[in-house]
Amino acid sequence: MENLRLDDVRQMIEKHQKAELRKLLLESNPVDVAELMDELTDKDLLLAFRILPKDLAADVFSRVDSDTQQKIIESISEAEVGRIINELFVDDAVDFIEEMPAVVVKKILKNTSPEMRKEINLLLSYPDDSAGTIMTTEFADLQVGLTVRDAIKRIRKIGIDSETINVLYVIDENRHLLGMLEIRKIILASPEDVIGDIMDTNVISVHTLSDQEEVASLFKKYDLLAMPVVDREDRLVGIVTVDDILDVIEEENEEDFAKMSALEPSDDLYLETNVFVLAKRRIVWLLILMVSATFTGLIIRKYEDVLSSIVILTAFIPMLMDTGGNAGSQSSTLIIRGLALGELELKDFLKIMYKELLISLIVGSILALINFVRLYYIEKTPLNITLTVTLSMIFVVMIAKVSGGLLPVIAKKLHLDPAIMAGPFITTIVDTLALIVYFKFAQVLILK
Amino acid sequence: MENLRLDDVRQMIEKHQKAELRKLLLESNPVDVAELMDELTDKDLLLAFRILPKDLAADVFSRVDSDTQQKIIESISEAEVGRIINELFVDDAVDFIEEMPAVVVKKILKNTSPEMRKEINLLLSYPDDSAGTIMTTEFADLQVGLTVRDAIKRIRKIGIDSETINVLYVIDENRHLLGMLEIRKIILASPEDVIGDIMDTNVISVHTLSDQEEVASLFKKYDLLAMPVVDREDRLVGIVTVDDILDVIEEENEEDFAKMSALEPSDDLYLETNVFVLAKRRIVWLLILMVSATFTGLIIRKYEDVLSSIVILTAFIPMLMDTGGNAGSQSSTLIIRGLALGELELKDFLKIMYKELLISLIVGSILALINFVRLYYIEKTPLNITLTVTLSMIFVVMIAKVSGGLLPVIAKKLHLDPAIMAGPFITTIVDTLALIVYFKFAQVLILK
Repeated sequence: MENLRLDDVRQMIEKHQKAELRKLLLESNPVDVAELMDELTDKDLLLAFRILPKDLAADVFSRVDSDTQQKIIESISEAEVGRIINELFVDDAVDFIEEMPAVVVKKILKNTSPEMRKEINLLLSYPDDSAGTIMTTEFADLQVGLTVRDAIKRIRKIGIDSETINVLYVIDENRHLLGMLEIRKIILASPEDVIGDIMDTNVISVHTLSDQEEVASLFKKYDLLAMPVVDREDRLVGIVTVDDILDVIEEENEEDFAKMSALEPSDDLYLETNVFVLAKRRIVWLLILMVSATFTGLIIRKYEDVLSSIVILTAFIPMLMDTGGNAGSQSSTLIIRGLALGELELKDFLKIMYKELLISLIVGSILALINFVRLYYIEKTPLNITLTVTLSMIFVVMIAKVSGGLLPVIAKKLHLDPAIMAGPFITTIVDTLALIVYFKFAQVLILK
Repeated sequence: MENLRLDDVRQMIEKHQKAELRKLLLESNPVDVAELMDELTDKDLLLAFRILPKDLAADVFSRVDSDTQQKIIESISEAEVGRIINELFVDDAVDFIEEMPAVVVKKILKNTSPEMRKEINLLLSYPDDSAGTIMTTEFADLQVGLTVRDAIKRIRKIGIDSETINVLYVIDENRHLLGMLEIRKIILASPEDVIGDIMDTNVISVHTLSDQEEVASLFKKYDLLAMPVVDREDRLVGIVTVDDILDVIEEENEEDFAKMSALEPSDDLYLETNVFVLAKRRIVWLLILMVSATFTGLIIRKYEDVLSSIVILTAFIPMLMDTGGNAGSQSSTLIIRGLALGELELKDFLKIMYKELLISLIVGSILALINFVRLYYIEKTPLNITLTVTLSMIFVVMIAKVSGGLLPVIAKKLHLDPAIMAGPFITTIVDTLALIVYFKFAQVLILK
């Protein structure tokens, strides 16, 4: 890893030490070579890229930033474009094409082999977030009737171009998926064994149109390294591999983080995104939440007489609102994550409500007690004001935790994403309710 | 998957159809069998578990809940305990032992083979969250001088007991890690090739004491399925496989979600955790944040004269505070996740500050403008009050976004976890600053 240094590479290019550079790049991990390419100047980039042998070039190409990909494609000859694209795994080629402007896509498709073009178009036709878009069509399949000896011959032939041969898929003559076979079984079997006899028929597969998140949760549940994808007629059309699933899980988590912080999800990199785009991602939710926060203003205006007669009541509003907001988002986060990870289900509705109620009673009472000691004994606040604040505290925490527990469940029931019910929304709802409770207590306990 | 139904299994047990049950369980995925076992009554559980052949029993055992594991271990004979434990992968055995009470652990270790016991004790001795605790010691290694023919013989011998043989690790006579070899290369090579000539020397390995999160990020970066773990003398001692990494990534994300919502991280399941434990996870942060929220109270008291002369100012406090809190946690979430995923680094400090400043200027101005129109033109609020609210809005959003961008970076610099600087902390800091700005504007613009 550490042996690939930008300065060394720059020097080699400057001194025209092509052989040394080639040797260095060949000895390095393609991921590191790709990282290096992203750092080079346009001229050095092309020079270094052209030094790579064909298969390494394709591997590195699939890993560089899309800016770098575009620079390379725009600068190399049409024949070279064809050589690289045809060498890519189809799923990588699709990822790359989706990022390119139309004119570049034209240059790419023009120089791609007809079979590759057909497969690229097939993958491009699947809906966003479906298993079809993350699968690759390069896998190793075996006919059910083969012997192990013939199977090994076939693997030797097609193995190099498959994204994985750790698991082989067994099909009949109509390409229907019948079973699977770990490569270790092939190695451990005797040459005369028939594939159909040693295969594992208990295969977990998904449909091309299945949702990526569903595929990811099957990978997690069954500890899979790869999973076959079938079409409507149950014919094997591709496989999804675990490295793509790591990306799906990451994307999914980032989306939830974003939604829970009132951001519109996006997979742009922060430093590379322009401020107007970043501002746009944030303004929509801020606006919605600001408008809904004006409800709290309405409530305060309604109770203006209470406040003007006891101005000190205002001093406790931020504490009550903040504590309520925090208590609510604690609950909503736990429930949202529980639903996302499948640990909680809609039928647990009542159990969640009951638990949150008990927890909020415990937590709320402790917070109220501490406030009582501070206000009444230490700060010598009048008893009626102390009671208004402390009793409100208990109720606010209870309201916050029950809303925090229930809103994500309700969202899920309405087929909305529970994550949008988190942090900010809860805060607004809890704030409004907190103020009403607070002023009601004040009216009863102070104004009588 | 769907062919394994709880009712069918219960019926088979009731009717003593052992052969049918055995056949059904053997045809099912061990993950599903384990899920079923968790649902059975104690009596049925033991009956069904005893039906399983030894290797499937171990696989299922490693996947059931720890409650179920304990029930099984407590009910079966000492010889049976030994058979199951010796059949487990060492890392699974360790996971299981860590969950058991002392008396059960004693029964387990007493019946474990000496080698297994030694390996379990070795793994138990690594610090929490280190690569050592998630690695397995069952892997396939090859001496560098072997021919492919002899290598295949060795794989056949040790392959069954290795957690993966998709990647083989090449060592010298002192067990130093020299390289690795994908199984596909063995299949594609000719029998006379020497392992040392066809191996890949560019191996990414970690140390037993390396942090799990660091291991996970290497898996993501290099798209690995397994990674070798070496000890202080660079000797190969284990491998980490991608299925364990999926768990590490999930844990890591859940921890961040928890911290960002002011919860103490824990991997207990919500429904199975008692309310006092759940309350304890929440109270600490609520207390800290409640106490810090009292600062806002102090500020309001300091400006009591401003508020008592213009009570309507109170009505805008929640909106300013909420918008500030939301704007701040948008920024902190983006920066925290950027740091966690390695997309942002400490050296980007100034760039982040500059971007957040620009974004907050754009976002703050839009929000202020909308407020201006609403307050001045629609609600006919006096101009000096309108200006106090709208100018405060711009400053609050700017303060919120810059703090949200910088606090995680500062936390990282101080070697604290940036995630604790998220949501709740930001809210408290922003609230305090927002009130000061608001009252200062009020003093200048309204009270003159």
